[in-house]
Amino acid sequence: MGKAIKTAIKIDFDKKPWEQAGIHNRWHPDIPFAATVKPGEVFHIQCFDWTGGQVANDDSADDIRNLDLNGCHFLSGPVGVDGAEVCVRTLQLRSLRGWLIITQPGDVLVVEIQDIQPFPDKPWGYTGVLDKEAGPSLLDAYYPEAIKAIWDFEGIFATSRHIPHVKFPGLIHPGILGTMPSAELLSKWNIREKDIHDHHVEIHSPLMVARLPQEKGTYAGNSIDPEKFAKVAKEGARTIPPREHGGNADIKNLSRGSKAYLPVFVKGAGLSVGDLHFSQGDGEISFCGAIEMAGVITLKCSIIKNGVKDFAMNTPMFLPGPVEAHYGPSRYLTFEGISVDENGKQHFLDAHIAFRQACLQLIEYFKQFGYSGEQIYLLLSSAPVQAHIASIVDIPNSCTTIGIPADIFDFDIMPREGKIEPMDMGSCAYTTTK
Amino acid sequence: MGKAIKTAIKIDFDKKPWEQAGIHNRWHPDIPFAATVKPGEVFHIQCFDWTGGQVANDDSADDIRNLDLNGCHFLSGPVGVDGAEVCVRTLQLRSLRGWLIITQPGDVLVVEIQDIQPFPDKPWGYTGVLDKEAGPSLLDAYYPEAIKAIWDFEGIFATSRHIPHVKFPGLIHPGILGTMPSAELLSKWNIREKDIHDHHVEIHSPLMVARLPQEKGTYAGNSIDPEKFAKVAKEGARTIPPREHGGNADIKNLSRGSKAYLPVFVKGAGLSVGDLHFSQGDGEISFCGAIEMAGVITLKCSIIKNGVKDFAMNTPMFLPGPVEAHYGPSRYLTFEGISVDENGKQHFLDAHIAFRQACLQLIEYFKQFGYSGEQIYLLLSSAPVQAHIASIVDIPNSCTTIGIPADIFDFDIMPREGKIEPMDMGSCAYTTTK
Amino acid sequence: MGKAIKTAIKIDFDKKPWEQAGIHNRWHPDIPFAATVKPGEVFHIQCFDWTGGQVANDDSADDIRNLDLNGCHFLSGPVGVDGAEVCVRTLQLRSLRGWLIITQPGDVLVVEIQDIQPFPDKPWGYTGVLDKEAGPSLLDAYYPEAIKAIWDFEGIFATSRHIPHVKFPGLIHPGILGTMPSAELLSKWNIREKDIHDHHVEIHSPLMVARLPQEKGTYAGNSIDPEKFAKVAKEGARTIPPREHGGNADIKNLSRGSKAYLPVFVKGAGLSVGDLHFSQGDGEISFCGAIEMAGVITLKCSIIKNGVKDFAMNTPMFLPGPVEAHYGPSRYLTFEGISVDENGKQHFLDAHIAFRQACLQLIEYFKQFGYSGEQIYLLLSSAPVQAHIASIVDIPNSCTTIGIPADIFDFDIMPREGKIEPMDMGSCAYTTTK
Amino acid sequence: MGKAIKTAIKIDFDKKPWEQAGIHNRWHPDIPFAATVKPGEVFHIQCFDWTGGQVANDDSADDIRNLDLNGCHFLSGPVGVDGAEVCVRTLQLRSLRGWLIITQPGDVLVVEIQDIQPFPDKPWGYTGVLDKEAGPSLLDAYYPEAIKAIWDFEGIFATSRHIPHVKFPGLIHPGILGTMPSAELLSKWNIREKDIHDHHVEIHSPLMVARLPQEKGTYAGNSIDPEKFAKVAKEGARTIPPREHGGNADIKNLSRGSKAYLPVFVKGAGLSVGDLHFSQGDGEISFCGAIEMAGVITLKCSIIKNGVKDFAMNTPMFLPGPVEAHYGPSRYLTFEGISVDENGKQHFLDAHIAFRQACLQLIEYFKQFGYSGEQIYLLLSSAPVQAHIASIVDIPNSCTTIGIPADIFDFDIMPREGKIEPMDMGSCAYTTTK
Repeated sequence: MGKAIKTAIKIDFDKKPWEQAGIHNRWHPDIPFAATVKPGEVFHIQCFDWTGGQVANDDSADDIRNLDLNGCHFLSGPVGVDGAEVCVRTLQLRSLRGWLIITQPGDVLVVEIQDIQPFPDKPWGYTGVLDKEAGPSLLDAYYPEAIKAIWDFEGIFATSRHIPHVKFPGLIHPGILGTMPSAELLSKWNIREKDIHDHHVEIHSPLMVARLPQEKGTYAGNSIDPEKFAKVAKEGARTIPPREHGGNADIKNLSRGSKAYLPVFVKGAGLSVGDLHFSQGDGEISFCGAIEMAGVITLKCSIIKNGVKDFAMNTPMFLPGPVEAHYGPSRYLTFEGISVDENGKQHFLDAHIAFRQACLQLIEYFKQFGYSGEQIYLLLSSAPVQAHIASIVDIPNSCTTIGIPADIFDFDIMPREGKIEPMDMGSCAYTTTK
Repeated sequence: MGKAIKTAIKIDFDKKPWEQAGIHNRWHPDIPFAATVKPGEVFHIQCFDWTGGQVANDDSADDIRNLDLNGCHFLSGPVGVDGAEVCVRTLQLRSLRGWLIITQPGDVLVVEIQDIQPFPDKPWGYTGVLDKEAGPSLLDAYYPEAIKAIWDFEGIFATSRHIPHVKFPGLIHPGILGTMPSAELLSKWNIREKDIHDHHVEIHSPLMVARLPQEKGTYAGNSIDPEKFAKVAKEGARTIPPREHGGNADIKNLSRGSKAYLPVFVKGAGLSVGDLHFSQGDGEISFCGAIEMAGVITLKCSIIKNGVKDFAMNTPMFLPGPVEAHYGPSRYLTFEGISVDENGKQHFLDAHIAFRQACLQLIEYFKQFGYSGEQIYLLLSSAPVQAHIASIVDIPNSCTTIGIPADIFDFDIMPREGKIEPMDMGSCAYTTTK
Repeated sequence: MGKAIKTAIKIDFDKKPWEQAGIHNRWHPDIPFAATVKPGEVFHIQCFDWTGGQVANDDSADDIRNLDLNGCHFLSGPVGVDGAEVCVRTLQLRSLRGWLIITQPGDVLVVEIQDIQPFPDKPWGYTGVLDKEAGPSLLDAYYPEAIKAIWDFEGIFATSRHIPHVKFPGLIHPGILGTMPSAELLSKWNIREKDIHDHHVEIHSPLMVARLPQEKGTYAGNSIDPEKFAKVAKEGARTIPPREHGGNADIKNLSRGSKAYLPVFVKGAGLSVGDLHFSQGDGEISFCGAIEMAGVITLKCSIIKNGVKDFAMNTPMFLPGPVEAHYGPSRYLTFEGISVDENGKQHFLDAHIAFRQACLQLIEYFKQFGYSGEQIYLLLSSAPVQAHIASIVDIPNSCTTIGIPADIFDFDIMPREGKIEPMDMGSCAYTTTK
Repeated sequence: MGKAIKTAIKIDFDKKPWEQAGIHNRWHPDIPFAATVKPGEVFHIQCFDWTGGQVANDDSADDIRNLDLNGCHFLSGPVGVDGAEVCVRTLQLRSLRGWLIITQPGDVLVVEIQDIQPFPDKPWGYTGVLDKEAGPSLLDAYYPEAIKAIWDFEGIFATSRHIPHVKFPGLIHPGILGTMPSAELLSKWNIREKDIHDHHVEIHSPLMVARLPQEKGTYAGNSIDPEKFAKVAKEGARTIPPREHGGNADIKNLSRGSKAYLPVFVKGAGLSVGDLHFSQGDGEISFCGAIEMAGVITLKCSIIKNGVKDFAMNTPMFLPGPVEAHYGPSRYLTFEGISVDENGKQHFLDAHIAFRQACLQLIEYFKQFGYSGEQIYLLLSSAPVQAHIASIVDIPNSCTTIGIPADIFDFDIMPREGKIEPMDMGSCAYTTTK
């Protein structure tokens, strides 16, 4: 008799995310655990897309422009990992069978991502660029208005009616995977982020520098008591940035078969997950830039006692999974960027600017084939492109590279002699005002 | 009968680099071509190590501390690519047989790197960290003094008596590969670099912001006429930064079998190459951080007429070679860094700081095994580590990752339960004053 | 609005396979199509495991010993691929929009395997060795009695309580994928297989040489008319061997993302699929040797008109998918076998014997760690081992190799100095009589 | 100061192979060691091509037809591995420093292949098909006459004027690597090979079944005493087949960075190497089918005491090197063969016939592009094709596959709709009588 794998958190698409158990959108130690699992146990967690269903499978980017970001990201969790008999993998302790492992601050939570799948009846996702005012994207100076592409999932592949002649298998992963911060760590976050907000807001204005805690839109599950909720609403860290606990790291290689090593800050660890991506390019440059989707993640956890100290950990470590698309290194057409900006201004070892130059260079190249800049911007965010820091000490220029696999196109993209004949590439989705 | 491949530039180790033909250390259109090759022709170029032989295979870092950087890098070239009958690869033009191809500004020079080898009687190289005053390295705040490691080449592998228990095959490549700038482009470089130097020197002082043209140390081959030499000495761009023509990009993946697409700015292209690396990690973080070596590079060039416009090129493109070490993605232990610095200060989407954090995290982890921080700093620069820009829009943090292959160590580096037992790891080379 | 993907063939686990539509277990042109799809359409097909549910998730191999093979394999299909408007991929014909493509003999059916998944409520499979009398397995001289291992699916990974310390991601694939033969092709099969049966049965007796058509157990769906059924029962080719139409090729690399090119022999092609494997080693050496499972396959078909002649095809071609587990070549411990048998007898360039020797050598090696021969025999069949024909002309020996990835074990399998300390490896499942 | 690596065996191209030290062409324990190395020492061995220079870089296959095989293969060695202080890698023994390791029968010789290079002044090799009478090749029924292709080495790549539009990096390896047999093992070989020769010679006549010891052509170095030479000439095993000691295994994956584990049968091991291949396809199907070359191999040896028993070894094991060309799995166009021969005759699980069918199928496919069968036969032997045993128990058919990387061609080889337009593919080299 085999038996089905348990689902630790289930979602209901007929209800709003903020009406159901097991969902939250702030990081705070007072959010109660929505479920508990044991080390060694395999379990599923169901997840909304990061917006909780605000984006439709249609041909208008109006929904992207109108996104309510106060409630984002809708995460599934927190899940307590605790109370297990001694985990089978900690071989050194095997004589201690029968003891309880209590997951404590200072331990390391090992999260094995055993699988991620879209829901069978929802075989699609989307990539968007937000309006510039809603948040920075790498090329917002060039593409300030909301755009969108819908992706259809054909088994392991994604294709888009908005970006034709492209097809690739997803390196599927959670944009967000994190443990709950302690009160102390949370306070550290809030101080440093308020600091940069206060000091830089006028420099970057009207762009957002950091999203600070905000009561509006806060959700912490449907079982939290009102007093604690008030605290979460007031102090809870927003889910946008990656931090010491993991969080929104948007690491495309944290895919099926990966192991993440996350520091534990509260008893029971409190694991939350969400923002599932069918695929993403390094950098997720357009912010809502992965192929965003709802889906199911399959996990198995174990605990390494005192690992934070033993591994001298400040931030998470991980091992990618063994299964990836492999195209061969010589199939990646690679573009270089240096830290001289579009206006010819020299910057000092600035990898951010160098990376932007590489992206702009790639976009110009692909325009020759008939694509619009918007289409390639969306593609760069979502396809499995590789962004490397090539050199970072050759004053005053850093050099970054971005490589795109030729084999995701159904025509030949390689440089050759002779003017390229542009093809009819259709269009991505724009807002109705455009 | 087969015949040996021609050597376009030969070097003589019994003479100083600045005494022989085919060597130069500035970028300037007035440096005369030291050799000429035809499209489609296979040829060798011999290269000094970047310092022209200033570093010895010994156990002291004094030579690294005392490096004379005025003459660096010693490049081999420039080589004119020109005068060929119609190149066989430009199939579209095949009816034009008999015409001469003249390589012109606006063309693209395709450089196929067919092989790179150390000299058989010099099977060794070195990795160094310069003194902080000599130039910035990523972790100069932590490792301000000169250190060194010597690497022995055992066929395709490198090992070091200064960093024991490590062995890896080299992803061998030229740190520098570039075409000659036009006078106009050179002027653009000089203006923008002087600009950053003048405006930032006090901010970064006493660190170097940019190295400007400097007569002292200038070498432009032994056949240049005095008037032109004076111009080169006065205006010639230094070889440290990568620029629009290629140059010191330090891209580890530009290895055997790669094709680089370089814009042409002068008639005949003027290709120069040097700074050979037996291996390097992404970022080359310690500046003299690759495994520096002398050696021979085998090249074949072709020309794509008008490619700069047809490909909308501002900077080089390339295709990596098909041959690399492959360890499997799940064998890369990967560390994350976010743009919060060591003092807890929040920076805005700063990939440079995020990358530094990932490196520091990795170093702390490996110290647990008994290595010194210096040893791992040298290793990170020289071993085939992968540095990715994971996310760059999740305000206020960017996230970068650095992955190191477990299989280059002869012991198990994977995280496990239980205190790690440090091993005797010896020492890298220090200066005698230390 | 996205919509769910259509299921062309659905199965019902509450009914026997031979009671429902869309299932058959012989190859014959008179079996009516159970469903029809169009070129370019994405669709699911549900499949029984090859035995139609005869094997349980328990710790006894009695069910393996008692297998009724008359009904095997239970395939899903045939599916007609036809009647579509001009397929989008046949670009040359794009001016012909509106024509019907009729799939005809001589065409090539391109089957894209977009995904394969076990049923979510059945996350397990099994590997078995049949009793020697039931059919040959590579090592039946050594392991003549039925044995079994159960595998649990943890996301993309398989583990087994019967073969501990092993875990690997499945290279999931259909053991059987084929088009329906024409009457003429079927007749050719029946003649040649009867020929070898008649001439060799006494040499190999009591082993089976070939399974000929047999009325007993024949099933051809529940909509076939009695006259045609009688014909199918009498003439229908058994499903064991691979043949010119594809069939039971058991190619482990025909996994997710693959494209198979199958010759078409009847109007509408008649595609059938089954015998799904969660994983398999090259050779599937123990016959029931893959990780056998029930599941769902997602397909998309297109047609290349007249491809059989244009490609000079006698047998199928395929392109593997881009997504596989990658361990790095140096992680495959590889064993050699030559065509000298266990008794020291020299055979002439016999790759079969050479392969058997390599397998036996591998088994002996792993016994040193505490595994039984039976456990490794089951593992070799089911894990992603690579079997290469290394040399086949070096008279009188051929050389074959079998490589097993070290990283599927949770201990170090590499050869080293010193006696290996055997571990407690438990046991696979045996029959109760043992 | 670093120093150059020692050359244990040097060859002189101005002398015949059978006039110089360090060369032999039989396996026999009485052949004296030509050099001695210590465990842990890195050393070079220079090698002739397998024929000792009988084949020229020209456009006639006459030299292939006229090959004198009595003297082949010309191997470099034997090299004694012995007398070292305790090897650094045998960590368990580290307290025993100062002891001598004596390499004894029953030990395992670990041979690390650190590099292989052609001679810089001989950047070419050849692939041939011998006349049918000279020895079997896989397709001798179709291609019975001598043919040849010359390959030019452009760095890591090979190209051929005889097989245009093809270019690939070599997976460079020694066809032959072996230890010296003991007298007892040699006697076993001689008995079993004479047995098959005597019993099968009339079946296969006029083809060769096995090459038995033969005085004519025997060479055992220039320092052997006459009595021992007479014994070697009479009993010495020929070098064609792979055997328990390694020998002519022609394993393409035993390339740079590999480790071979060879059983030791005589004191000091007696390692010999030769038959260097710039590249080879699985199977080396045309016998002289790799890209044969002269060159230099760099090795490092260590000893595992009593390894033969501890690892239950009958034949060598190996670990491939980490560095290979990677094209991505989906770039291998793969052909299937089943054990039904060209005349439609059914064979019983015969992998040899199945493999031949797959090769024939591949050749027919590529003829459509304009190549001759001879050209593809030569290409299949020499390019990095992958031959897998897919299934070997599906009675009566086995299935083998052969995959060829699309990226070694400079045109698109993928199957598509529409008649292929053949190109002008020139010709391979034939004999003058043709």
